[in-house]
Amino acid sequence: MVVKVYGPAYGCPKRVLVCLIEKQIEFETVDVDLFKGEHKEPEFLKLQPFGVLPVIQDGDYTLYESRAIIRYYAEKYRDQGTELLGKTIEERGLVEQWLEVEAHNFQPPIYNLVINVLFSPILGVPSDAKAVRESDEKIAKVLDIYEERLSKAKYLAGDFFSLADLSHLPFGHYLVNQTGRGNMVRERKHVSAWWDDISNRPSWKKVVQQYKYVV
Amino acid sequence: MVVKVYGPAYGCPKRVLVCLIEKQIEFETVDVDLFKGEHKEPEFLKLQPFGVLPVIQDGDYTLYESRAIIRYYAEKYRDQGTELLGKTIEERGLVEQWLEVEAHNFQPPIYNLVINVLFSPILGVPSDAKAVRESDEKIAKVLDIYEERLSKAKYLAGDFFSLADLSHLPFGHYLVNQTGRGNMVRERKHVSAWWDDISNRPSWKKVVQQYKYVV
Repeated sequence: MVVKVYGPAYGCPKRVLVCLIEKQIEFETVDVDLFKGEHKEPEFLKLQPFGVLPVIQDGDYTLYESRAIIRYYAEKYRDQGTELLGKTIEERGLVEQWLEVEAHNFQPPIYNLVINVLFSPILGVPSDAKAVRESDEKIAKVLDIYEERLSKAKYLAGDFFSLADLSHLPFGHYLVNQTGRGNMVRERKHVSAWWDDISNRPSWKKVVQQYKYVV
Repeated sequence: MVVKVYGPAYGCPKRVLVCLIEKQIEFETVDVDLFKGEHKEPEFLKLQPFGVLPVIQDGDYTLYESRAIIRYYAEKYRDQGTELLGKTIEERGLVEQWLEVEAHNFQPPIYNLVINVLFSPILGVPSDAKAVRESDEKIAKVLDIYEERLSKAKYLAGDFFSLADLSHLPFGHYLVNQTGRGNMVRERKHVSAWWDDISNRPSWKKVVQQYKYVV
């Protein structure tokens, strides 16, 4: 059964794509155009009632929320492809901790930047300068904590690549490559080395090449 | 080894407490006074560099982010106390989905209410009426989706109580009991029945009785 992933052109669905590639799981993608409001159409809302991306269909199993989907596949195909959950329950605990940090501390300010720097001009709405400034400040503080953590371990959850690192790829890419904030990563030695490591994985390079960001 | 839980008087640490009780795990609590800024003191930041609650210590294992902690204990003590992750990988996938929905759709608007309705007066800062109005609108929309879901299944992830439901208790309690929004739950038949069910579990009643909310 081939997994169907909705919305490959956007950030959060890319979290799912890179996970599926790491786990060597076959998938196909279904385009959803946010700018045309396709995520608010009745057919889409039947799959994802909150009207956000991504959602997957795997036979008759439907699942949404990107970080739930990547946990599901990392667990279901534990012995296939890259191990992404750590080897022990304690390692998995730390993977979960840093997945939560990514969700609550890393992505939100970058998401605000993306909305104000990249999406507002396309939508023809004014950019919120205060939101941009506050986002920059938050990202700097978060990256300072990452710098300290990554000076002690090669990856966020320890000396192994995991979902915790993988989950940073879509919005890390926005930060470094599309919002002109690459310096925020480059100025921090350990964050910079970590970013080079994870963003050069063949899985992520394939995602970026085959499923272009819409902006 | 007794688990130490920091900050029992606040919402997110209560998510951990109720989980530990369901899993029959012995613990003790360490008070942290946010109003005195104890979460920003160097000793606390060594445990939790982002300066937020909760954090646990279990021997020499330290873990933060409440939803990471509850996943860790639900997995570690899978065969003890209440099963909270579902029986199959597919059920766990849905538990993860609704845990994410709670984190991204349910808690944030209620958190904004709590800040503006409960904390602002104590801190002597003005309440943001626009934020309150927007939060009320968001909560209503989210609860409409919950109503639909709970008309088809007794609990969020299916016909079994899980971390997905448990995770709603601390901020559901704020909504119903401390911000004067009980009607938002009562007006929705299935949400109301679900809330009565989960909030009357002995574990949660014990948390509310023994670890009073600070406001």
